Amino acid sequence: MDILNDEFYMDLALNLASKALGQTSVNPVVGCVVVKDGRIIGVGTHLKRGTGHAEVHALNMAGEEAEGATVYVTLEPCSHFGKTPPCCERIIAAKAARVVVACTDPNPLVAGRGLARLREAGIEVKVGVLGERSMKLNEAFNKFITTGLPFVTLKSASTLDGKIAAKTGDSRWVTSPASREAVHMLRHRHMGIMVGIGTVLADDPSLTTRLPVPGIHPVRIVVDSALRMPLGAKLVQDQAAPTVIVTTESSDASQREALEAAGVKVVVCGAGPKVDLTQAMKRLGELEIGSVLLEAGGTLSGAMLDAGLVDKMLLFIAPKLIGGANAPVPFQLHGFDKMSEAIEIEELDVQRYGSDICLSGYPANRRRIPLGNRLT
Amino acid sequence: MDILNDEFYMDLALNLASKALGQTSVNPVVGCVVVKDGRIIGVGTHLKRGTGHAEVHALNMAGEEAEGATVYVTLEPCSHFGKTPPCCERIIAAKAARVVVACTDPNPLVAGRGLARLREAGIEVKVGVLGERSMKLNEAFNKFITTGLPFVTLKSASTLDGKIAAKTGDSRWVTSPASREAVHMLRHRHMGIMVGIGTVLADDPSLTTRLPVPGIHPVRIVVDSALRMPLGAKLVQDQAAPTVIVTTESSDASQREALEAAGVKVVVCGAGPKVDLTQAMKRLGELEIGSVLLEAGGTLSGAMLDAGLVDKMLLFIAPKLIGGANAPVPFQLHGFDKMSEAIEIEELDVQRYGSDICLSGYPANRRRIPLGNRLT
Repeated sequence: MDILNDEFYMDLALNLASKALGQTSVNPVVGCVVVKDGRIIGVGTHLKRGTGHAEVHALNMAGEEAEGATVYVTLEPCSHFGKTPPCCERIIAAKAARVVVACTDPNPLVAGRGLARLREAGIEVKVGVLGERSMKLNEAFNKFITTGLPFVTLKSASTLDGKIAAKTGDSRWVTSPASREAVHMLRHRHMGIMVGIGTVLADDPSLTTRLPVPGIHPVRIVVDSALRMPLGAKLVQDQAAPTVIVTTESSDASQREALEAAGVKVVVCGAGPKVDLTQAMKRLGELEIGSVLLEAGGTLSGAMLDAGLVDKMLLFIAPKLIGGANAPVPFQLHGFDKMSEAIEIEELDVQRYGSDICLSGYPANRRRIPLGNRLT
Repeated sequence: MDILNDEFYMDLALNLASKALGQTSVNPVVGCVVVKDGRIIGVGTHLKRGTGHAEVHALNMAGEEAEGATVYVTLEPCSHFGKTPPCCERIIAAKAARVVVACTDPNPLVAGRGLARLREAGIEVKVGVLGERSMKLNEAFNKFITTGLPFVTLKSASTLDGKIAAKTGDSRWVTSPASREAVHMLRHRHMGIMVGIGTVLADDPSLTTRLPVPGIHPVRIVVDSALRMPLGAKLVQDQAAPTVIVTTESSDASQREALEAAGVKVVVCGAGPKVDLTQAMKRLGELEIGSVLLEAGGTLSGAMLDAGLVDKMLLFIAPKLIGGANAPVPFQLHGFDKMSEAIEIEELDVQRYGSDICLSGYPANRRRIPLGNRLT
């Protein structure tokens, strides 16, 4: 049985936030519950960037009853004018007596100022209730807001002998329907999906979100150093979601113009011959793509890992052996000389999807240092 | 990983409902989530009897965006004017395209009429998504609305050898702090708490809800056939919550007047010498006490069980042996002659609370037949 305590209400606030994951673009997901005298009097969640924050929805529902109430919120209320007025002032105006916060906002524009403002106004503030759950929920936002770079999740689907396809290239299907559905859920929750041009030329994929009820399609991002994207590809023609092609200065200018005329955004990153991936991530961040699902083949995935640009890995593994020395693998790294140089994977975890398992973890070489283009 | 489907949103709606359990008095708890194009656009929960239903809160949050949306609601929307206007009409006015309902409303005033009204208005309706969870959540409401009788939960705390106290009467404490906290959560979630006069004379309890954050106190109900309640008892003096005494015609009239003058409600059930418990439950139902937590000693608990008035049992058991042939036990039944006559306990389940366990189940002899005073 649950017990009535601060965690009881924060659990609901976190549930409200987590269900909205994927729909707030570069904003964090935030849930809020307002409580008075043992009763919930308002609930809210941040629904969409540029619209009311969770606290505003919940306080609107509570109305005048909010006076003297406790406000549970999964992230420190904002103290600055962004796209909406500061939530701190809304809480103070509502005359709440107590604010319980899961974790502080890593956004340098807030970062403790919200809590200070509330305390200054005489409101009792408690921080850290289910804080780890809240931090994890916004792991993508937390990276983006402090570095300006998207949070990159590498996803692969391979056999138990580490192949993503047969030696013939056949890959329909490696994993079970349950795993493939989970991947579509990842697409719903990421702002961008990234593949290499090789995947486009081989499969002509649509890279949309297909689930039992409508999901949100990610922006499709193709790394295409020599601009080999066919004008007839689904990603150019289907209008299902925006498509961004990342290329180099060495690519053909007329092809670039033709693609742009067809509605595709072309971003140039580096002189070539290969796309400068670090620069590409910076540019995607500037385009406000805060999270990227990397569903690429071994070459691009390996290069992203080598560059320290992968934040999280999700490796779906099916219980089968396909064999073939040259059958493709999930990521080709440059290869270290010593075992002590290997990239460590932190927080290794495992989940089951139908007959498959999924290993997850965080590469220790991921970049966590601000690159100077922090959002303002 | 959760998958985006009807269950994904209904899970949030059920979470919203369950957190409000205890604050809606004889109304059911209901949660609502409004979704459009892969985004949550409104959330709500029924907060208090006589105020807006879950659907109204969620549709208010959604605003004009609700046109064409899907409304997930844990209970069939009402179709009648009760204390608030019918939710069906609100959903129709908002131009929702689809309504997904966990279960139909057993309230005879609704009972399928809400769904019929929505379908009639051209709205697509789906029923039965996580329906069992919703039915369980409102098990007390479901009994009350169909029979007019409160849903009675018997709680006991005993040793592994079935004693609720030592042979000396000492009972501080049988169970662990975790179990005792769970009992206070049960008080928060029930409208009434019932004990016999023996408990009052022995312990002078306050029977309030004491939890880490404020909870709701239940109405205190004392079964007191001969009206032995002392005027100085906490239940008479402390004003923490209403107190109802159930007695018989054979009790002393002047004592009855003195108790009423002190603010206690006295209800007469039967000629005596013992309170007519079936009539008492009917009267409590008329007082709109829809759920009762029975925290009584063996005599009253046994009599309630014998009368088929207990709907659910929660037996907390501590890992200790106290001994003593005459040490008190949780319930004294009249005793059946044959094993085949024993009261079966359905859906036996077990949970852990600290070092204790809690067995739960539903006595098969519980009354499920309407008694004719169904609410209108």
